[in-house]
Amino acid sequence: MYVVLGATGYLGSYFVNHLESKGEEVRGLSRQEIDYTNSDELRSLLNEIKPRFLINAAGYTGKPNVDACESDKSECLFGNAVLPGRIRAACEELGIPWGHVSSGCIYSARKANGDGWGEEDEPNFSFRNGPCSFYSGTKALGEEVLKDAENCYIWRLRIPFNEESSSRNYLKKLLNYASLLEAENSISHIDDYINSCLSSFTQECKPGIYNLTNIGSITTRQVVEWMKEEGVTEKEFSFFNNEEDFMSKAAITPRSNCVMDTSKAERNGIALRPVEEAVRDSLRKMRMQVSV
Amino acid sequence: MYVVLGATGYLGSYFVNHLESKGEEVRGLSRQEIDYTNSDELRSLLNEIKPRFLINAAGYTGKPNVDACESDKSECLFGNAVLPGRIRAACEELGIPWGHVSSGCIYSARKANGDGWGEEDEPNFSFRNGPCSFYSGTKALGEEVLKDAENCYIWRLRIPFNEESSSRNYLKKLLNYASLLEAENSISHIDDYINSCLSSFTQECKPGIYNLTNIGSITTRQVVEWMKEEGVTEKEFSFFNNEEDFMSKAAITPRSNCVMDTSKAERNGIALRPVEEAVRDSLRKMRMQVSV
Repeated sequence: MYVVLGATGYLGSYFVNHLESKGEEVRGLSRQEIDYTNSDELRSLLNEIKPRFLINAAGYTGKPNVDACESDKSECLFGNAVLPGRIRAACEELGIPWGHVSSGCIYSARKANGDGWGEEDEPNFSFRNGPCSFYSGTKALGEEVLKDAENCYIWRLRIPFNEESSSRNYLKKLLNYASLLEAENSISHIDDYINSCLSSFTQECKPGIYNLTNIGSITTRQVVEWMKEEGVTEKEFSFFNNEEDFMSKAAITPRSNCVMDTSKAERNGIALRPVEEAVRDSLRKMRMQVSV
Repeated sequence: MYVVLGATGYLGSYFVNHLESKGEEVRGLSRQEIDYTNSDELRSLLNEIKPRFLINAAGYTGKPNVDACESDKSECLFGNAVLPGRIRAACEELGIPWGHVSSGCIYSARKANGDGWGEEDEPNFSFRNGPCSFYSGTKALGEEVLKDAENCYIWRLRIPFNEESSSRNYLKKLLNYASLLEAENSISHIDDYINSCLSSFTQECKPGIYNLTNIGSITTRQVVEWMKEEGVTEKEFSFFNNEEDFMSKAAITPRSNCVMDTSKAERNGIALRPVEEAVRDSLRKMRMQVSV
């Protein structure tokens, strides 16, 4: 039996569906149903279910975007940094292996030498190394709280996308925003990400941090070109002049734009597809939906 | 009716006793009795009691000292940064004025120009401006969470002391430690502090941050001299060579040693006594206890 916390959230629902489609027994939990953020309730729940693996897909992302975290700081801290610590304590006490949906948004740009950020690199978009958004600060604290956790996988996601029409889907966001910010990023195809997360456990990779983004990186302009090439849109996209222009017109808090090093996932046989392949695949599926 | 959260804690019990001794109605709450960290429970409690003022003396300080916070990061974050945000939300919703026990430990040393740290100065011993202890990081985040809160007093305490035999009392700590660290600090006489906190509300000072330490500063060697002069001890105190020596032998995480600017409290008529007067007063009472 797998347990998924945050089962009705964006990522959580994909975890539940994926596990069910593989014929796995899964118990998806939402906070409305049971307050798993309460340590006593969590512990008695896990004692009862005795899952072979727990997935923490609960977290506070801010709606419609990370700007919302700036005005709900305490719940953002709670969801992203306190809750992981409570889950850790319960899982370590009961000997349950587990995985935590973390984020690459604790970095900005590339390393000084031009490489992507590795699992062992100190975050440079965090409270300790600012500036950062409050959201990114709490995600970095969440990883700090999980340092040296037993039997814990920390799966770093970046900018999820696929072909579906969710407002959280990066490709849909690009189509809907009035203006775009040109930036280089690593991004994560959702199915690829979920597959890699679960494989880290089933293939018995060593617990710890894994950067789970598609191999390589994209720029906003590249993706927009691919959209046209794949026939998804003929829209003439408008771009902000630069990050200052974007910040002054469309954002409250700075965004993380960064490139991740995926070599650890590759070495462990759980890498996501190369990014262009995954993006074009999603775009083709989007075009087919439009034409149907 | 006053409500005190964390009523069985070190500071909380002084608040309750002080208010009762003044003939005020007070409801002291401990988390064992009611989980006021749960927003729903807190809101319904406050709706029922309708206090004229709430005091948040709950927080996570680490036992026996701040080093303990390094190994319980999530609960430290919860008590010091999430809980204040939840109290703020409930009090703002219900229109209840309140005060929060904050700390001057978010600063180190003095300002570059030699002055003490004022209420508007950016913390320099916090996650955003490190290095810091995890404890101090969470206290600074707590103040960030309370920025611009309505009808909220933020009362900064530093190193509480009086004549009583608690292991939390600074003067008792000095007597009990095998070796001392020479450092300059602002410190807070507990009764003076409680008086000033409550006066800020009863004298209708403007809500906001107040540095509530005794006027002036002490050094460890000075206090030890006063102890001898007041006949509290004849002990020959041993000192660490320097902060590095202290860190390597007696501490896990760095300590805040700092001097606060108390002029805002003075201007508002809620200042604590000059520090030498308050320390000598406590020492004389300690000596009388010994001789009785």
